[in-house]
Amino acid sequence: MARLRVHNFSVSLDGYAAGPDQSLENPMGVGALRLHEWAFATRTFQQSHGLEGGSGGEEGIDDQFIAAGETGIGATIMGRNMFGPIRGPWDGNDWKGWWGENPPFHHPVFVLTHFAREPIVMDGGTVFHFVTGGIRDAFDRAMEAAQGKDVRLGGGVSTVQQYLRAELIDELHLVVAPSLLGRGERLFDHLDGGPFGFSSVEFVSSRAVLHARLTRAAR
Amino acid sequence: MARLRVHNFSVSLDGYAAGPDQSLENPMGVGALRLHEWAFATRTFQQSHGLEGGSGGEEGIDDQFIAAGETGIGATIMGRNMFGPIRGPWDGNDWKGWWGENPPFHHPVFVLTHFAREPIVMDGGTVFHFVTGGIRDAFDRAMEAAQGKDVRLGGGVSTVQQYLRAELIDELHLVVAPSLLGRGERLFDHLDGGPFGFSSVEFVSSRAVLHARLTRAAR
Repeated sequence: MARLRVHNFSVSLDGYAAGPDQSLENPMGVGALRLHEWAFATRTFQQSHGLEGGSGGEEGIDDQFIAAGETGIGATIMGRNMFGPIRGPWDGNDWKGWWGENPPFHHPVFVLTHFAREPIVMDGGTVFHFVTGGIRDAFDRAMEAAQGKDVRLGGGVSTVQQYLRAELIDELHLVVAPSLLGRGERLFDHLDGGPFGFSSVEFVSSRAVLHARLTRAAR
Repeated sequence: MARLRVHNFSVSLDGYAAGPDQSLENPMGVGALRLHEWAFATRTFQQSHGLEGGSGGEEGIDDQFIAAGETGIGATIMGRNMFGPIRGPWDGNDWKGWWGENPPFHHPVFVLTHFAREPIVMDGGTVFHFVTGGIRDAFDRAMEAAQGKDVRLGGGVSTVQQYLRAELIDELHLVVAPSLLGRGERLFDHLDGGPFGFSSVEFVSSRAVLHARLTRAAR
């Protein structure tokens, strides 16, 4: 059965996945960019995001985890805040995500929002769909669009928390970075004593970060 | 200059260092004992605590960290809850800690408490002193007793938080276990956006846990 998977979700050593004061300049909040430096350094990330000509980047454990997060995925779900910095109603149709004309998804992407908007067809196979029916509607539509492949769940923090509370996540791959943020949004908050049912199946550090992979028994 | 060091302080992947509902049966709270299984398995812990004849236990990274936590230490500070399950006034003088007649410290131990009590001289060089003057008084007395060696700070959670807020801790060695507790006491709470000034100097996983060692610049 197809699964809902979270991959390469970075948190600080004190548990924060986003910093305070998110803005266009600091889309992850102040100080949180450094939680992701390990990912930017990998070959797979640089290739899929067309950085530095796509010819550089490091191989190794971190790169393998980045690549694994793109394997067997047929659709993506993400929160509004991961799609863009705009809050409230769409201010025209100019904003098409952070990723340029050819986003690194190459499959349907379902964006959770309270404000309806027509789908956007991008280059390279990515289509952004805007879902106003809630997390289960997005889940159902993404699973159908994935055609038997798995669905990947992106951020932000509150989106992952909603899916954890609904017990819809099958695999949760966290990356703990050796930084302290002190403030921001914690992943493990607002979970009513959960998440429940997860077991650690992999727990290994690279030179940069810790990778912790947790799975839940099949639904 | 002598330093105040925290070693082998275990937290769950979701940040809890103690579980809910602490009691005589569950001194660390429900579910938290498994955060420490990695330590119980080591040769150094088993030897220093006289477990299984002291002849067993595993060597390796975890064992090295346990041993490092006992190296160069001349005195220990701990909270009342780490010393025992009794709350409020001392109920007689029967309770002498969790560790039997020959505790694994072999140096002066300063127990933070609101209730005065005469020192207790144990076998093997451990003397329990009861400090009612607060964390700075305990710090000063322990530093003096350590005679130039470092002072180790034990738990529990709130004791470490108090010393973090006072910016008196020089080295903080955390151990992240691949478990989720969901409830309990978090280490990184009540710190007013801190702790401040720490840098990661070591970040390495064993087969069982992650070791994260942070230090602050000299006072």
